[in-house]
Amino acid sequence: MNDSIKGTMMSYRPDIKVLDATIRDGGLVNNFAFTDEFVRNLYQTNLRAGVDVMEIGYLADPELFDESKFGKWKFCHEDAIRSVLGDLVSPEMQLAVMADVGRANVARDLPDKQDSILDMVRIATYINTIPAAIEMIETCARKGYHTTVNIMAVSKAKESELEEALALLGQSSVEIIYLVDSYGSLYPLQIRDLAKRYLEAGEKYGKKIGIHAHNNQQLAFANTTECAMLGFSYLDATMAAMGRGAGNCAMELLLGFLKNPRYDIKPVLRFLQDDMQKLINDGVVWGYDIQYLLTGYLNQHPRTAIAFTNEKRQDYFTFFQELQENE
Amino acid sequence: MNDSIKGTMMSYRPDIKVLDATIRDGGLVNNFAFTDEFVRNLYQTNLRAGVDVMEIGYLADPELFDESKFGKWKFCHEDAIRSVLGDLVSPEMQLAVMADVGRANVARDLPDKQDSILDMVRIATYINTIPAAIEMIETCARKGYHTTVNIMAVSKAKESELEEALALLGQSSVEIIYLVDSYGSLYPLQIRDLAKRYLEAGEKYGKKIGIHAHNNQQLAFANTTECAMLGFSYLDATMAAMGRGAGNCAMELLLGFLKNPRYDIKPVLRFLQDDMQKLINDGVVWGYDIQYLLTGYLNQHPRTAIAFTNEKRQDYFTFFQELQENE
Repeated sequence: MNDSIKGTMMSYRPDIKVLDATIRDGGLVNNFAFTDEFVRNLYQTNLRAGVDVMEIGYLADPELFDESKFGKWKFCHEDAIRSVLGDLVSPEMQLAVMADVGRANVARDLPDKQDSILDMVRIATYINTIPAAIEMIETCARKGYHTTVNIMAVSKAKESELEEALALLGQSSVEIIYLVDSYGSLYPLQIRDLAKRYLEAGEKYGKKIGIHAHNNQQLAFANTTECAMLGFSYLDATMAAMGRGAGNCAMELLLGFLKNPRYDIKPVLRFLQDDMQKLINDGVVWGYDIQYLLTGYLNQHPRTAIAFTNEKRQDYFTFFQELQENE
Repeated sequence: MNDSIKGTMMSYRPDIKVLDATIRDGGLVNNFAFTDEFVRNLYQTNLRAGVDVMEIGYLADPELFDESKFGKWKFCHEDAIRSVLGDLVSPEMQLAVMADVGRANVARDLPDKQDSILDMVRIATYINTIPAAIEMIETCARKGYHTTVNIMAVSKAKESELEEALALLGQSSVEIIYLVDSYGSLYPLQIRDLAKRYLEAGEKYGKKIGIHAHNNQQLAFANTTECAMLGFSYLDATMAAMGRGAGNCAMELLLGFLKNPRYDIKPVLRFLQDDMQKLINDGVVWGYDIQYLLTGYLNQHPRTAIAFTNEKRQDYFTFFQELQENE
């Protein structure tokens, strides 16, 4: 059963990198309304904890989104990032932003790497917009950035579509291809099957593979550890699992699992008790709950569960009937 | 990798049985102070949901525990059970109690099966009290009950001890041997390795194997699904994961995973919104939290995390330092 396992519970793979997506995925919960102090504390926490990459938001197109309605981390203008993090930046940790296909103009809005504090651009795409994603990847790569591509909602894709997508991306300049369980619907058995497909493509085309999990069925951490054991190189996590809907793989769980002495859970515990607890006390709500279980189980987008949460409903039985009518 | 997997995501194994441990493990959270109405509603919910066995409490020795300090489900006197459930009992679902080695007198307190509403006795033992557990197993078997043995805290046992324990139990009258992750410390990779040892013993001695997981690292459901895929026959779960400390594998997650049309999540959703929500509103506290993650990660008993919870502490960093001093 374990013939594909890379490493044991005692060893570690130095090629594994941890990416903190708290501001980016967590920003979907609070419209990116993080204080500068929070983001600075998080930066220093990540640095001390050994986190390899910190994703600080989206590169959203200001022509499509009203800047007055969101915090600055949805747009990540170069000067805005520098004014908050400029004096802290260390070569020990990369800074990343996410650019959604159809919602970002990387050709216009992203400076050349030599003029930017950013190191990495992560292109988020659905499987039917791969050609547009590749155009964005090539633009970012030409500008000098590390690039990832995050194929969202892969639980909805046919195997044949995924094979074609991986082949197209394999021939692009992208460095890292992410398996994204957007709906938190995949069981470990399914994740392992998908992981094998991604790793085969990675080997064939010389790409590294990453995992971005959601916690609808309390499987984000388990699925992330499975991918790590099978040979994935990039593992996404967020503080206290903060992220859209049910949230992500919790950083505090992941750092406990990883055996590389580079990683240290203690600064994360301090950040949880001081900064994350404050967010929770302020009424920001995310994380596993029955409504997210149900959208995950039915392999549906979590938007209905987010609305259920916002309406403070608890009638799970009726909600489940509503979801089944959406099938 | 999947050569040992029994079944696919679409098929099901009819030999898989689901055991609801809400009253027994959840009773550790509220001193078994469930209302009769709650227990009756739970019985009917389990029956409608297709649950195979309902565990209704402990057979605690009244000479060791003060009956005025606990609800009746800690003692499970025959007349007490009958007065609450007698008119509901259906042959479709078995009733079980747990008897702890050293804390129960099954010879004296357990009636013969022909005089009892109970079907199954689960003997809970640490690995160093297996001979006493076997004596209890034989007593219960002679009285006519189905029996399980639950080897607790297996994450602390040496492989050689476990081999010996499984061999001894294999030669006893016990029908089902449980893998119990008492501290919620085992990762899926470790669970699979242990599962293989239990399954080998089960095959050799003709015993069925079960899993009882705890959710300290949000792995209870994942580990339960792994055991199910590998060939375990008995899967423990509780409503809303209610159980000591971080709780158990949630019934609502497990029934979503199982493909046998016998199981139905809908009655469970009703019970969650009506009865479990009431417990939560009344201030009963359990479930995954950072303090449980930390005891799980360090493979320690959750008692310190339970105290941390009861004291409403949130200083995770200091707590972690305290735990490391206990190592």
